[in-house]
Amino acid sequence: MALPLPVSLSDTIVALSTPPGTGAIALVRLSGPEAISITDEVFGGKALRNQAGHTLHFGTIRDGARILDEVVVSLFRGPHSYTKEDVVEISTHGSDFIVQELLALLVRRGARLAEAGEFTKRAFLHGAFDLAQAEAVADLIAADSALSHQVAMQQMRGGFSQELRDLRARLVQFAALLELELDFGEEDVEFADRTGLVQLLQEVQALVRRLLRSFELGNVIKHGVTTVIAGRPNAGKSTLLNALLNEERAIVSEVAGTTRDLIEDEVSLDGIRFRFVDTAGLRDTTDVVESIGVERTRKRVLQAALVVYLFDITTTTPQELQAEIEALHLPASVPVLAVGNKLDVASDAELAAFQARPSTVLIAASRGDGLDELRETLLTLVRGEGLDRASSSTIVTNVRHARSLEQAAHHLDAVLTGLATGRGTELLAADLRHALADLGQITGEISNDDLLTSIFTQFCIGK
Amino acid sequence: MALPLPVSLSDTIVALSTPPGTGAIALVRLSGPEAISITDEVFGGKALRNQAGHTLHFGTIRDGARILDEVVVSLFRGPHSYTKEDVVEISTHGSDFIVQELLALLVRRGARLAEAGEFTKRAFLHGAFDLAQAEAVADLIAADSALSHQVAMQQMRGGFSQELRDLRARLVQFAALLELELDFGEEDVEFADRTGLVQLLQEVQALVRRLLRSFELGNVIKHGVTTVIAGRPNAGKSTLLNALLNEERAIVSEVAGTTRDLIEDEVSLDGIRFRFVDTAGLRDTTDVVESIGVERTRKRVLQAALVVYLFDITTTTPQELQAEIEALHLPASVPVLAVGNKLDVASDAELAAFQARPSTVLIAASRGDGLDELRETLLTLVRGEGLDRASSSTIVTNVRHARSLEQAAHHLDAVLTGLATGRGTELLAADLRHALADLGQITGEISNDDLLTSIFTQFCIGK
Repeated sequence: MALPLPVSLSDTIVALSTPPGTGAIALVRLSGPEAISITDEVFGGKALRNQAGHTLHFGTIRDGARILDEVVVSLFRGPHSYTKEDVVEISTHGSDFIVQELLALLVRRGARLAEAGEFTKRAFLHGAFDLAQAEAVADLIAADSALSHQVAMQQMRGGFSQELRDLRARLVQFAALLELELDFGEEDVEFADRTGLVQLLQEVQALVRRLLRSFELGNVIKHGVTTVIAGRPNAGKSTLLNALLNEERAIVSEVAGTTRDLIEDEVSLDGIRFRFVDTAGLRDTTDVVESIGVERTRKRVLQAALVVYLFDITTTTPQELQAEIEALHLPASVPVLAVGNKLDVASDAELAAFQARPSTVLIAASRGDGLDELRETLLTLVRGEGLDRASSSTIVTNVRHARSLEQAAHHLDAVLTGLATGRGTELLAADLRHALADLGQITGEISNDDLLTSIFTQFCIGK
Repeated sequence: MALPLPVSLSDTIVALSTPPGTGAIALVRLSGPEAISITDEVFGGKALRNQAGHTLHFGTIRDGARILDEVVVSLFRGPHSYTKEDVVEISTHGSDFIVQELLALLVRRGARLAEAGEFTKRAFLHGAFDLAQAEAVADLIAADSALSHQVAMQQMRGGFSQELRDLRARLVQFAALLELELDFGEEDVEFADRTGLVQLLQEVQALVRRLLRSFELGNVIKHGVTTVIAGRPNAGKSTLLNALLNEERAIVSEVAGTTRDLIEDEVSLDGIRFRFVDTAGLRDTTDVVESIGVERTRKRVLQAALVVYLFDITTTTPQELQAEIEALHLPASVPVLAVGNKLDVASDAELAAFQARPSTVLIAASRGDGLDELRETLLTLVRGEGLDRASSSTIVTNVRHARSLEQAAHHLDAVLTGLATGRGTELLAADLRHALADLGQITGEISNDDLLTSIFTQFCIGK
């Protein structure tokens, strides 16, 4: 079903595959039919063309009489390589000068400088993996937390693709029956048991929707959760931040705002990055709405994925708390977690006033009491109800995948509605074909060069 | 002769060997007796301990049940490796997160994080190469021009070491005869023919001095030549700079001075970097000596390795030129090249006035006339008289080597003087031993841990 791809696989590409800059080692990688012969032309050592794949060879790189470097060459023979083509990796001393000279030399000998992601694109075109897996390679490289790494790794190793293939296989089965009915169109037969088919469609639709819902979490895993901490002065916001940071060895960065200091700190909880924003300005929101500082803070709050409203148990009544939270005017989609501080010095009556309140956690920031529960609650809010732990289920992290799933859901809805309202088989079959195409685009069973270009140009050069 | 080295070679070291940052590939390298067994503990793939050296193996890195990455492992068995120990290189996806997790995992399994240069230090301690060659590895990585690369490569491949070994062998031969005389000290014999020995010493001394002289050029090759361009306004300095730059694809950078723009441009001529400084301020030096701008310019001139004084042939007399150059008050050690511009519009008489002047080149910057001769003259000035082209002779680029050579020269002088004045054999032998030690320190035949530490800590981690 794949469209013809106007991409040349007949030439040999080359690129620096390690990060640029000075280091001990740099790797220059070639892939393509001439990878071995081009290297042989400049390699002073064994003739690589006579060597087996998966072997290492020490030698020199020579540009005429001049020795450019002493190197180790890794030899991979297709299809037993990353791209499934012949691949040579030249391990040079990590000098930009040497790398540039070597690239120029290899280009003079007939290699072409690779475009961004072109090695992975070739791997995809040669069927080493599907498109969702190829995209996971970029996600894996960009992963900066345990969870984003884990989700990317799962996707790269085909977990997500397997789930999609299963979905699609069930739809194909259904589509086949519909197409069969079309073949016998004149005779008005129904091969497909409509009741059973509705049930099957609903199951598939439920899976698609589950994947779609996972995108919210996927997005959080990939990009982190912006969590605004609001509250009156002296509620203990800084103490809370420090308590969370000290125990998590977070990356600490202080960004000074123009009119008021907005302190932002990042902390990783169970592999999910939380970006806490300490919005000192919010304390005045109910009084001075005009000031620019408060306006900025308000904007930041509206960007929040989550708001922690910190209050002092000993000086706040439940009614005040409710009023203050309402005064934030948050969109309904942003969850607010009320966190009562100073548990350790509060009276029994003060505690009792909040203990039964939903979405409320009581802590003593200075002593660390209740922090574990706070962390757990934050994670639960982010993961959402009904989602298993991210580690054990497939998570969609890619915007492109989410869009395709949305379209698939839309077309599946159309099929279900069509079945309920007795629409003609021809129209049902068309919608179903659309849904199949939507899902096929995710794994690249259906693709075109524009799509591939837009995907692979996001990769780094040399991958 | 090497001192005992309190360096542990019994543990297994690990480091990231490619530059940090996001890229397609990162290489984590282990070296030491447990390199293979430690990797085997975390590698999901073939058992590396059963594999031959110089082979590549695809597999996964596992931390318990968790898959950290899909990797390719390069296996080197000592002594056929960089360090001459067992070496494993793990090629991972180029993510800082994965690299940090992998390093932590390997450390938990018994590896130790390598110090800067520790792989190369081990290679030296295991006799893979001598100290001068090891130092050349760092120079090679830092090389940023064709010539600095070439000199470092020559040194790394042992060219410099060979020359030193030859020198030393001749001295050892001489020393042996002197020591023999000492053994027969009571009997007042002379085994060593004094005339022949003086001749031999003079030859060796001449070689040491040639190497020492080459250090000036070596320094230039390694660090570039700061060349100040001075001259009246409208002499054509900018045109000259542009002409040199356009043809050489130089890195252009503009640094705005505080009081006056000092424009600095770098251009590589025949592999030597020239850093041209266009000192606009100098034009006023004879008038306004007090201004800060002129003072700064003057300081820059005093840092110059070379001064190009550009003048307009059609508006300058030889007497004026001479006066203006003298007004620069340059130290005698800084060569001045007078460059006459506007050759194309000058009259025959004007040309004749300068054609015979020494250290003068005539050009037409706007048309490019005479630029080749100018480049050649600049190169000749930098290389110094009597030096062959850098490519064909050994060049000393390392301050430590230059110091050792200076000391060797000093001790050789003492021997020669001693011979001339009839000093006792014992004193002659002592001075000669010093000279031998000086030369031995360069290649590391004589070394100690402090020396090695000071050398290898200048390396990057992972090398």
